[in-house]
Amino acid sequence: MSHGSFVSPAARDRVRGIAKPIALAMGRIGLTPNALTVIGFIGTLAAAAAAASQQWTLAGVLVIAFGIFDLFDGALARATGTTSKFGAFLDSTLDRTGESLVLAGVAVGCAASNFVEGVLVAGVAAAFASSVTYTRAKAESLGLHGEVGVAPRAERLALLAIALIVAGLAGGVGWYANLPGPTDEPLRPGSIPMLIMIGIIAVFSAVTVVQRILHTKRQLDQQP
Amino acid sequence: MSHGSFVSPAARDRVRGIAKPIALAMGRIGLTPNALTVIGFIGTLAAAAAAASQQWTLAGVLVIAFGIFDLFDGALARATGTTSKFGAFLDSTLDRTGESLVLAGVAVGCAASNFVEGVLVAGVAAAFASSVTYTRAKAESLGLHGEVGVAPRAERLALLAIALIVAGLAGGVGWYANLPGPTDEPLRPGSIPMLIMIGIIAVFSAVTVVQRILHTKRQLDQQP
Repeated sequence: MSHGSFVSPAARDRVRGIAKPIALAMGRIGLTPNALTVIGFIGTLAAAAAAASQQWTLAGVLVIAFGIFDLFDGALARATGTTSKFGAFLDSTLDRTGESLVLAGVAVGCAASNFVEGVLVAGVAAAFASSVTYTRAKAESLGLHGEVGVAPRAERLALLAIALIVAGLAGGVGWYANLPGPTDEPLRPGSIPMLIMIGIIAVFSAVTVVQRILHTKRQLDQQP
Repeated sequence: MSHGSFVSPAARDRVRGIAKPIALAMGRIGLTPNALTVIGFIGTLAAAAAAASQQWTLAGVLVIAFGIFDLFDGALARATGTTSKFGAFLDSTLDRTGESLVLAGVAVGCAASNFVEGVLVAGVAAAFASSVTYTRAKAESLGLHGEVGVAPRAERLALLAIALIVAGLAGGVGWYANLPGPTDEPLRPGSIPMLIMIGIIAVFSAVTVVQRILHTKRQLDQQP
């Protein structure tokens, strides 16, 4: 559904087909779609806490797990005919808050590792990623389409999860000496991959914000 | 205009009265409202860079200066009859991106001071403050009102600027020794005021997100 997304519509349909029976099973034990949304947000808080504690691999696995879990609220609502505007509002609000909090957790974990460069890319990525979501909602509040761009949320989260897992498996980020300031100590091997991958999220998100600003301008220019 | 805002509508009108002649003067030298919006965003980037460089007082002064400057684009557009949906869209998108980037700069500056607690509150404040703006746009995209809550942007920025100026005048944040991990060194005196003030932004923003979610639910419940 997203322009420029690297996940094909067919792949999305397959994933939805798998999600439906699991979601219905969750519904049978009494969970509503909105309850699943809140549980998913709490799971994302756990991912943020893991990143803040420098448990990078755990954080990455939790981001993937609750990214997949996030499919179930919508799947249950569709399968039971209980989709609602409020459910969609709650889901998108908690999704974007959760993504920002995971990046805040990454910034905290990097700071605790004295890896200031990691704090910088996580902070910039959080700022632009949240503006990506904002520009779409704002464009839609003007009756326009806002969903364009190279950095949709699923792709941002996948890249973030990979960055975290690689950082964890490579032994963490920052310098071995864990001392402040420039040092001759070697960088931990997870550092550069994390900078690159979260840096890609930041750059692609910034590009998407610009794309959405221009897309909004074009649509408004075409209005009578 | 905001419910619960601590700046009265009369005070806002007075400020607008002062802004108008300055804005018109800027217009006379050839600047458009959208040019003023972009200049204000660049100024906010300078505030973010100052915070990242631990130039706390400068960062706070720039936040105030460009917070005031942000009045001129709208004032010029109204005074010259050139208000536009695109101008409003660009202004609100760059305002919220700028606020997040200043908080990212604060996180970087705190990380460079080995003040991990500061990174935490700045990250959480950024996450919830951006969700405050998001919930309003998302509610409006559903044809609802979203502007409720205890933490509107002007008040968040004022508190952030005060936190930065106090931190700067008090000699910075973090520990005197600038060593990682727990230490017996005393905290620099700017640390606790910054934690409290940015912590207030984080808590009030989180409360506002919850208020807006509930306000949206009430409005949708009342729909036929």
